[in-house]
Amino acid sequence: MTENLLSTYKKLMEKVKEIVILNSAQAIIQRDMETMMPPKAIGLRSQQLALLSQIDHKMTTDPQIETLLKSIEHHADYDSLDTVQKRNVYLIRKNYDEQTKLPEELVVEIAKQRAIAVDIWKKAKAAKKFLMFKPELEKLVELQKKAAEILMKVKKTKTPYDAAIDFFEPKMTSEEITRVFNELRAGLVSVLRKCEAAPRQPDVSVLKHKVPLDVQRKIAIALAEAVEYDVTSKNSGGRIDETEHPFTNGYYDDVRITTHYYEDLFASSVFSVLHEAGHALYEQNLKPEWMYQPVGTGCSSGFHESQSRTVENIIGRSHEFWAYFLPKLKGIAGSTLSNLNLDKFVHAINQVKPSKIRVEADEVTYGVHIIIRFNIERDLFADKITVKELPEIWNQCYKDYLGMKIENDSEGVMQDTHWASGYYGYFPSYALGNIYSGQLLAAMQKDLPSWRTQLEKGNFKNIRQWMSKNVHQQGNLYDPPALIKKITGKEITVKPYLDYLETKYSKLYGF
Amino acid sequence: MTENLLSTYKKLMEKVKEIVILNSAQAIIQRDMETMMPPKAIGLRSQQLALLSQIDHKMTTDPQIETLLKSIEHHADYDSLDTVQKRNVYLIRKNYDEQTKLPEELVVEIAKQRAIAVDIWKKAKAAKKFLMFKPELEKLVELQKKAAEILMKVKKTKTPYDAAIDFFEPKMTSEEITRVFNELRAGLVSVLRKCEAAPRQPDVSVLKHKVPLDVQRKIAIALAEAVEYDVTSKNSGGRIDETEHPFTNGYYDDVRITTHYYEDLFASSVFSVLHEAGHALYEQNLKPEWMYQPVGTGCSSGFHESQSRTVENIIGRSHEFWAYFLPKLKGIAGSTLSNLNLDKFVHAINQVKPSKIRVEADEVTYGVHIIIRFNIERDLFADKITVKELPEIWNQCYKDYLGMKIENDSEGVMQDTHWASGYYGYFPSYALGNIYSGQLLAAMQKDLPSWRTQLEKGNFKNIRQWMSKNVHQQGNLYDPPALIKKITGKEITVKPYLDYLETKYSKLYGF
Repeated sequence: MTENLLSTYKKLMEKVKEIVILNSAQAIIQRDMETMMPPKAIGLRSQQLALLSQIDHKMTTDPQIETLLKSIEHHADYDSLDTVQKRNVYLIRKNYDEQTKLPEELVVEIAKQRAIAVDIWKKAKAAKKFLMFKPELEKLVELQKKAAEILMKVKKTKTPYDAAIDFFEPKMTSEEITRVFNELRAGLVSVLRKCEAAPRQPDVSVLKHKVPLDVQRKIAIALAEAVEYDVTSKNSGGRIDETEHPFTNGYYDDVRITTHYYEDLFASSVFSVLHEAGHALYEQNLKPEWMYQPVGTGCSSGFHESQSRTVENIIGRSHEFWAYFLPKLKGIAGSTLSNLNLDKFVHAINQVKPSKIRVEADEVTYGVHIIIRFNIERDLFADKITVKELPEIWNQCYKDYLGMKIENDSEGVMQDTHWASGYYGYFPSYALGNIYSGQLLAAMQKDLPSWRTQLEKGNFKNIRQWMSKNVHQQGNLYDPPALIKKITGKEITVKPYLDYLETKYSKLYGF
Repeated sequence: MTENLLSTYKKLMEKVKEIVILNSAQAIIQRDMETMMPPKAIGLRSQQLALLSQIDHKMTTDPQIETLLKSIEHHADYDSLDTVQKRNVYLIRKNYDEQTKLPEELVVEIAKQRAIAVDIWKKAKAAKKFLMFKPELEKLVELQKKAAEILMKVKKTKTPYDAAIDFFEPKMTSEEITRVFNELRAGLVSVLRKCEAAPRQPDVSVLKHKVPLDVQRKIAIALAEAVEYDVTSKNSGGRIDETEHPFTNGYYDDVRITTHYYEDLFASSVFSVLHEAGHALYEQNLKPEWMYQPVGTGCSSGFHESQSRTVENIIGRSHEFWAYFLPKLKGIAGSTLSNLNLDKFVHAINQVKPSKIRVEADEVTYGVHIIIRFNIERDLFADKITVKELPEIWNQCYKDYLGMKIENDSEGVMQDTHWASGYYGYFPSYALGNIYSGQLLAAMQKDLPSWRTQLEKGNFKNIRQWMSKNVHQQGNLYDPPALIKKITGKEITVKPYLDYLETKYSKLYGF
């Protein structure tokens, strides 16, 4: 590499570093808004987010980035760049092209509208009135569609919705997702039917013990630490806050999760903590030397979900994990939970039963919740349906697919924060994550055949390290299709995930 | 006013509005650092603060501001601007001149060094080792001096330290402070001696009851609301978090305070909450129409302290307030505090006794703590003493002035966050605040002679409204000397404050 190319590359990376730092600052303000902010501050907060978004847009679309990029891309020695450097250049180019095609006013308007929509969504959900939420959601969807239409041309995707998906799952299309999801749905329904017909059914009354909130907070910390997400040590880089809808937010040394605590449903916080801890482990275990570089992020939302799903379900709902953790749980909770039987508890937390709420859904029916949302988003962006029709369509889908009667929009179309927050094209990631997690499990099984015995002894270290080496430390060096192939040798396929479900649930339900 | 002048003024105010919004975003990140941040994040956080400080500096020193300012200042119709508009222009000019003389690198370096110094200060304080803190403090003091020397020329102050003071108390000088503080010290010592010699002494054992932290948290909320700082209502603009050193942070609709809870010293959180609530009331009751304008802030740190001191001491340590609030306190605390006697309690919370810790000091000796710090800062900036000598000088002053033997630097020179956080020239504000509070009290007494009876009935509204009208709603329309004269008709004078102390303590101690 000549001195000239290297110094241009360094200049480019310095500029990008500033953007990364700004984004991490925006994340703090976003997180504060969700976890700590007094309600009256919403107007001021939306101005703050809009301004930072405007500064971000200005920095991201600085013509000097184009100049530096061009100088690198057309340099005679371009091939002397290593894989990581080339990937950084590719990712900066991709983002630059996407960002420069979006008018700054549109970006600012979307940021403002997101803040307003989230605020109204909270109030509308509390009031169970979709009509309160509708006008702001309509405005937001229109703005997001406008952006997606512009980006469709830049990203050269088939549809605007594909451009939205590409943000979260690069190189993935709604066509391919439709295909994979159809296969997934058939498999899930097959397992569901077998569970329903099985003679051995779980007794979920064991989950109904009242557990005081401060005890649940202690359980949350112990759980996080059992899966190596450190929230209490002297040099911890994490913490657990409380929001209705749990999320993970942060970057490298400052990665925080949230959960909710319900006194009469302690399992709800248990699994949301495990889920978010899986996300947090991904961010915390990225390569330190890639900090502030585009390669220093997760590969995709789907891969992120593969990590949260692995920790929540494959690890966190396994017999082995609870053989280790149940005595700990009893130690923290005291007499309240002292009668919990391991086998009964593990069956109860793996109950398969169609439900209304996605985040409370079981591992088997979960995918169906996602498929409903995916279909709606796809049709909404294709102007086949309107925002006004959402509650009706939602309720019909839940009736048709899961046999559930939705009583009000808070337990229906308004249950998730995603659409208010402007996350369109994100939902498919959850089910793609499940699919990837099955493929990763099969690969880990080969490298670490004793993982289940280790887990039973409370040794999560080797499992975490396998994930870190194969997933976390790969950062954003590959697009999802390339990464899954690199790790497992195969394209995306639902078989390992369906096999995992079949094995697990046949054992639990005895079919 | 011609159309042209008005449109230039509007352009200027639009630019300033962006800076104000950015500053309020920086405050959120600062607050998160103090209250919520996991320890590992400090490196990333210092980069975030440095970047935002850099962006702030760039916006603040944008040559377009100079162009707009000049165009307004030299406009033929300048006199058609109203008082508020002229004050905005004056404040923008003042800030612009100060900021443009400071090199951007110095500003960034100071921001970074502050973050590092605060972090080390926390660790050094925990370890009781000033030597850990010393090198980072030395670097920070050098940087701050460098800035003060530059600003001395811009502000045309006599000394660099006067330039530092001017940030917090415009138009105030160390010469004048020395004069007023000498008078204050004589008065304080006189009251102190009388208290010490008096036959009626307080029984502070009534404050030693153990009060569980969650009970103290409830008391804190009730106290805040008793003085009209709303932290729980549906549209509240406040909240109470926890830090070792309490502070108030925020802007208009998002003003939050912090406190600390010690199980065996519940009065400590009681008075820190009242103190910070006084600051919060100031910010919350600024004129809404002045939001995002330079006039839409408090007048000075000293005036801010006058508000916190009024709520903490004049209101919060009065017999009348506790006649109302003690039954409430008992209701929250239950059996623990049921035997508290009103008179004994009020005397106990007004015990006059020299102590080592400023924030735990009584109303009478408090000023002496400030005078020690003021003298040290003044001499440090005049190169009469060095950072290395601070512990020795500190300990000597505490021995000479208060008769206290300092055992280690955590209870000595490292007790406050100010010097680590870069607040030089701030300390005098605390005692100036006391002085102003005495003058304000005398003025309020004339307008609202029944304030004590109202307070006894739990009616704080009229007192708060008097303060809002006379202080809060004046915003930053006047410099402190002009404001105190406008409200009280007099220049700064210690007499009303000393009279207040004399009357109050002669009654309590019976001298």
